[in-house]
Amino acid sequence: MSPRMGCLENDCAKSCSIHVDDGSTVGKVITCKAAVVYAPGQPMIVEDILVAPPQKMEVRVKILFSSICHSDLSAWLGKNEAERVFPRILGHEASGVVESVGEGVGDLKPGDHVVPIFNGECGDCAYCKSEKTNLCKDYRVNPLKSTMINDGKCRFSSKDGNPIYHFLNASTFTQYTVLDSACVLKLDPLAPLKTMTLLSCGVSTGLGAVWNTADVQAGDTIAVFGLGGVGLAVVEGARIRGASKIIGIDTNSSKHIKGEAVGITHFINPKELDKPVHEKIHEMTGGGVHYSFECVGHPDVLRDAFLSTSDGWGLTVVLGIHTSPTTLPIHPMELFDGRRVVASVFGDFKGKSQLPHFAKQCMEGVVKLDEFITHEMEFEQINEAFQLLIEGKSLRCLLRL
Amino acid sequence: MSPRMGCLENDCAKSCSIHVDDGSTVGKVITCKAAVVYAPGQPMIVEDILVAPPQKMEVRVKILFSSICHSDLSAWLGKNEAERVFPRILGHEASGVVESVGEGVGDLKPGDHVVPIFNGECGDCAYCKSEKTNLCKDYRVNPLKSTMINDGKCRFSSKDGNPIYHFLNASTFTQYTVLDSACVLKLDPLAPLKTMTLLSCGVSTGLGAVWNTADVQAGDTIAVFGLGGVGLAVVEGARIRGASKIIGIDTNSSKHIKGEAVGITHFINPKELDKPVHEKIHEMTGGGVHYSFECVGHPDVLRDAFLSTSDGWGLTVVLGIHTSPTTLPIHPMELFDGRRVVASVFGDFKGKSQLPHFAKQCMEGVVKLDEFITHEMEFEQINEAFQLLIEGKSLRCLLRL
Repeated sequence: MSPRMGCLENDCAKSCSIHVDDGSTVGKVITCKAAVVYAPGQPMIVEDILVAPPQKMEVRVKILFSSICHSDLSAWLGKNEAERVFPRILGHEASGVVESVGEGVGDLKPGDHVVPIFNGECGDCAYCKSEKTNLCKDYRVNPLKSTMINDGKCRFSSKDGNPIYHFLNASTFTQYTVLDSACVLKLDPLAPLKTMTLLSCGVSTGLGAVWNTADVQAGDTIAVFGLGGVGLAVVEGARIRGASKIIGIDTNSSKHIKGEAVGITHFINPKELDKPVHEKIHEMTGGGVHYSFECVGHPDVLRDAFLSTSDGWGLTVVLGIHTSPTTLPIHPMELFDGRRVVASVFGDFKGKSQLPHFAKQCMEGVVKLDEFITHEMEFEQINEAFQLLIEGKSLRCLLRL
Repeated sequence: MSPRMGCLENDCAKSCSIHVDDGSTVGKVITCKAAVVYAPGQPMIVEDILVAPPQKMEVRVKILFSSICHSDLSAWLGKNEAERVFPRILGHEASGVVESVGEGVGDLKPGDHVVPIFNGECGDCAYCKSEKTNLCKDYRVNPLKSTMINDGKCRFSSKDGNPIYHFLNASTFTQYTVLDSACVLKLDPLAPLKTMTLLSCGVSTGLGAVWNTADVQAGDTIAVFGLGGVGLAVVEGARIRGASKIIGIDTNSSKHIKGEAVGITHFINPKELDKPVHEKIHEMTGGGVHYSFECVGHPDVLRDAFLSTSDGWGLTVVLGIHTSPTTLPIHPMELFDGRRVVASVFGDFKGKSQLPHFAKQCMEGVVKLDEFITHEMEFEQINEAFQLLIEGKSLRCLLRL
């Protein structure tokens, strides 16, 4: 598909009736299909739910595509006890069309093409006004949040009236969802919705970590630990910036192939190595990479990533979700060698103000989004799609809602 | 003393004969007094030692003043087993005059007024050529190093010929020392040697952490954990930059007075508080300081310093020496709140190229060095001077050699 070909002519054909909304659903409760999780690790049930109209500063969106990210997987498995809230609708990588807007929403209107952003931007708080962070005071990513900020209630309910909880400022495994307007990015109507889905999370996170957080320059060397969706987005970002060495590390050797397609110049499978990964990387680079990206979420991997950088100026960017209670596996005195470690949320992009430019770059083909979509399935196959991700067989599986 | 009054008219009067070296010692072994440590925590013995002439790219310096820093104390107590090397001459904050130079030394000559820098700068390596670090490849601070780099041997020996080990690229508790020329800063001959002694370590470390590492701006808020020499230098640096709130934290309430003299606007004694320090600081600042400086070297203090900053943009600068094996008391996921932690070596100053400007600022009175010298003693009183530091009674005690 040509990157300039828009949604209406292409991937949304089956849902075109939605694009020219006749207003018949505005202000009413909508009944639609959603994939509901009732207990950790139990198959999601695709069933009819009720979706209330958007309240003040909220937006109701018809989801057309949703992909699956590891954060969905973690929440589904209930890995973090504090985050276990059920029944719930997961999903946060998606694209769709605005169905209606609540009171006070000025920047969005019915028919707008949008993607949800789990790390919102109100534009008014001290954080949004600062150039130093993309964490909004009220709408930043918060895995503990499961209701809407307006009234602390859910907009989803079962047919018998019981609440169904929200997830990560998004909940996209449903044909209709309600989002805070701070968590909705308006797209160019010509943007291809199918691939724009990826902007919601993984691709923005990975490329942004390279472009914004690390600010990798041409000639720099990098190591990427974990070649899943986020890791490959890091590779993509580094290749575009002109990194001279892009070393991919994964315990699954089959990741080599996709890694090379996106841009890795070297591959290491730690299982096939007779020394620590960081030692190998120091040999390969004559003293360590400029930047390492930890996309796994394991303390040992984080330590290897930290030590794989050069002393003096090495920077490790943490992108992986660490569920172990282990604190940073770094001694304070080791910081005196000049290595640093930071985390990057949503690639340090401010969702509403900075992502439109990124979306434009994607449309212009600067970023090859197509590489990231390995599977497409119908919404009803969501449990199979989860299985593909668990087995490491898919990078991004796109569900058609 | 007027900051413009130089060494010759003032503090070096007793050593003026040295300034116009007659060359009689050049190339010869010098016998002089030094304070030698023979075992951890045992009183130093001030006795005659032999000091060999400088070798290639080395400089022999007559030390006129030396002050005592906590790193000397730690090394004296042998806190870190790996660093225990005896007999040894400690000391690294000092000032003096070049007696002679070895082969190849082009930027220094006999008679030059100098201070040793424990974190050297060769000027030629990839690290010295990078703007991102002040850690020289070969001459960076290294507490495990106890001999000269040229031949792995000592330039000090006892009168019966046994080697006496070096310390921290310096060893200044001796009337004559031998330094790598990369570890010698040449001063303006008008600079007051007595106060310039402080540039060797603590003051540069503290002010540099504020000016270079954190780059504190007018209006920013800071918290300084530990109001010893380095902590007060942090306060001095923040006051000069125009920080709006400078919160000093120390378990010794008497530090309040000196703190206020240098520039703290608020004082907290954690022992007198009914809540964690970071909670109090959040209340005082409406969400946390922009920067915190950990000048204690304790994991619990480091955690408090980390949490006392604002999420989104808070930066904690580690300056304390952590002797406990505890790793960073921070969970990887906590980094996703946008707080960062880095360490700063020698205030991120490149010793030979960037410190001359700092020395000029000190001479011009921008930095009030006099505040830091609380005691002066004769060299022979070195054990008493150590005791003052142990008991927290002195900030910097200057020994006259």
